Amino acid sequence: MTDEIWILSVGNELLIGKTVNTNLSWLGGRLTEEGFFVRAAITVRDDCGDVSWALRQALGMGAGAVITTGGLGPTFDDKTLECVAEALGLGIELNRTALEMIRRKYRSAGMELNDARRKMALMPVGGRPLPNPVGTAPGCALEVEEGGTIIFSLPGVPSEMRAMFEGSVLPDLRERLNREETAQDIFRCEGIPESAAAPIIEGVMAEIPGIYVKSHPMGSELGFPILEIHVQSRGRGAKGRVARASSRLREGLERIGGRILLGGAGAGSEGKE
Amino acid sequence: MTDEIWILSVGNELLIGKTVNTNLSWLGGRLTEEGFFVRAAITVRDDCGDVSWALRQALGMGAGAVITTGGLGPTFDDKTLECVAEALGLGIELNRTALEMIRRKYRSAGMELNDARRKMALMPVGGRPLPNPVGTAPGCALEVEEGGTIIFSLPGVPSEMRAMFEGSVLPDLRERLNREETAQDIFRCEGIPESAAAPIIEGVMAEIPGIYVKSHPMGSELGFPILEIHVQSRGRGAKGRVARASSRLREGLERIGGRILLGGAGAGSEGKE
Repeated sequence: MTDEIWILSVGNELLIGKTVNTNLSWLGGRLTEEGFFVRAAITVRDDCGDVSWALRQALGMGAGAVITTGGLGPTFDDKTLECVAEALGLGIELNRTALEMIRRKYRSAGMELNDARRKMALMPVGGRPLPNPVGTAPGCALEVEEGGTIIFSLPGVPSEMRAMFEGSVLPDLRERLNREETAQDIFRCEGIPESAAAPIIEGVMAEIPGIYVKSHPMGSELGFPILEIHVQSRGRGAKGRVARASSRLREGLERIGGRILLGGAGAGSEGKE
Repeated sequence: MTDEIWILSVGNELLIGKTVNTNLSWLGGRLTEEGFFVRAAITVRDDCGDVSWALRQALGMGAGAVITTGGLGPTFDDKTLECVAEALGLGIELNRTALEMIRRKYRSAGMELNDARRKMALMPVGGRPLPNPVGTAPGCALEVEEGGTIIFSLPGVPSEMRAMFEGSVLPDLRERLNREETAQDIFRCEGIPESAAAPIIEGVMAEIPGIYVKSHPMGSELGFPILEIHVQSRGRGAKGRVARASSRLREGLERIGGRILLGGAGAGSEGKE
C-alpha cells in the first residue's frame, strides 16, 4: 500500500456533459495543498459493475485511500455504497448510527422516515457513517482490511462533499497517510513560444533535481504567445528548490526576450492558487 | 470490441486542482448528443506508466474508441504519444506528414524547426497525424489493429481540442461506431424533497422500460427543496418514451404538491442543454 490517493467520481451526468466535475478539482487542490499525492481519478456511470471495477483498479494499484463522490442519496440510482460492498465482497446492512443521523435530520424538519430515507443508512458491513452537516445522506468510511486502504464515500452535492471532507476525511487522512512539504510558484511569460521555452525549462529541471516545471500555453504559439509557467516540488527543501528554479526560469526566459507577468504568487508559495 | 468510448485525460494540473476538466464535459456532451455512449473516463498524471496503464484498462474493457486529451506539445512533459506507443508495444518514429504540417505552421510565422518543434512529429508507428487548425501540435489517430479500437490523441488546449474533434475525430467515429437515437428532457420541481420524489421516479421507470431518470438536488432537502429532473432514453423510440415519462413525472410530482419550473427544454428534446 502506498500513500497515494485515488478519486472516484460516480454519475452519468459527468460523462454526458451535463455536469463539470468541480468536485475532482476541488479535492485535488485541497489534498495537494495539504501535502498529499493524488495519483489518478476515474469517472464512471451509475452502474455497480463499473463502480466496483474502478474501485478494484485503485486498490490493485496500491491506493492508500480512495475518495468516492456521488451516489449517496435517496433515489434508486444512488448506489455507490452498494457497489463498494460488491467490489469488496461484503454484505450490506442497515447501519443503526447512520439511521439515527437520518432520523434526527428529518424529524427536525417534521418528517418521518420512509423507505427512500431509510435507504441512505444501508452501508457495507464494517462501514463507519460520516456525519453530513449540510445535507441528509451520511458518508461512509470503510477500511478494506485493518490498517489497509481506506475508502471514503461522500455525496456529490459540492457543499455537502466539501464540509464532509473538511470535517471527517481530512483529519482521518492526516493520521493515516504520510504528507510531504510541497511548494509551487506560478507566473506568466509573454512573447516566447512554448517551443522556444522548452530547452530553458529542460535546462532548469536538469540543474535542480526534484523540480517539476509545466508550461501551459494561454495565448497563440505563432501569434502572441503567453505561457503560464508552473514550478513545483515535493519533499524536504521544496520551498528553496522552487525559489531557485523559479528565478532561474525567469532569468532564462527574459534572456531570450520574454516578459514576465503575474509573478504575484511569489517564489515558494505553498498550496494551490 | 463495443461501440463504447472512453476518455483519457492526461495532465498533473487536473489532479492538483489547478485546472477543471472542461475538456471531459465538453467531449461527453458532444459525443452524447451525437448518439455515442461514453462509458468511463480516466485522469492520470504526465507519467508514461500511468498513461499506458489507463489505456490498457480501456482496451481491456472493450472500448471501441479512446480519446486522449493533453500532452501533445513541444515540452518534455508532453509525452502522450510516447506513452500510447509504450502501451501498445509500438516503436515511435518521426512522422513525415506531421513534420510537414509543423514546418509549414512555423514557417508561416517566420520560424524554423528546432528540436522542441520536431518532437511534436514523433508518433507511434502506424499513427496518422490529424491537422490542428488552431495550434501547432498535430493530433494522432491510431488503430490498435486493423478495424479494431481506434485511439485519438488530441491536445489539451480546449480551442485546439474542440476544432480537431469536430474536424477529424467526429467524421471518423461516425463511420466506425454505431450511434443510437437519444432523447432527454430536463425540468425542475420545487417543494418536494428528493426522498419523497424517489417512489414516483421509480414508478415511472418501472412503467416505461428504457427510461432513465436522475434527480439532482439543487436546493435543501429539509428546507426548500428544488430538484432538477433529468429524463433520458437511448435507442429507437427514445423521443416518445421521454415525452411520456416526462409528463407522467410532472403529473406525479404535482400530485404530491410539487411546482414544476423551467420546463423550457420540452419533452423529447435531443442533445445536451
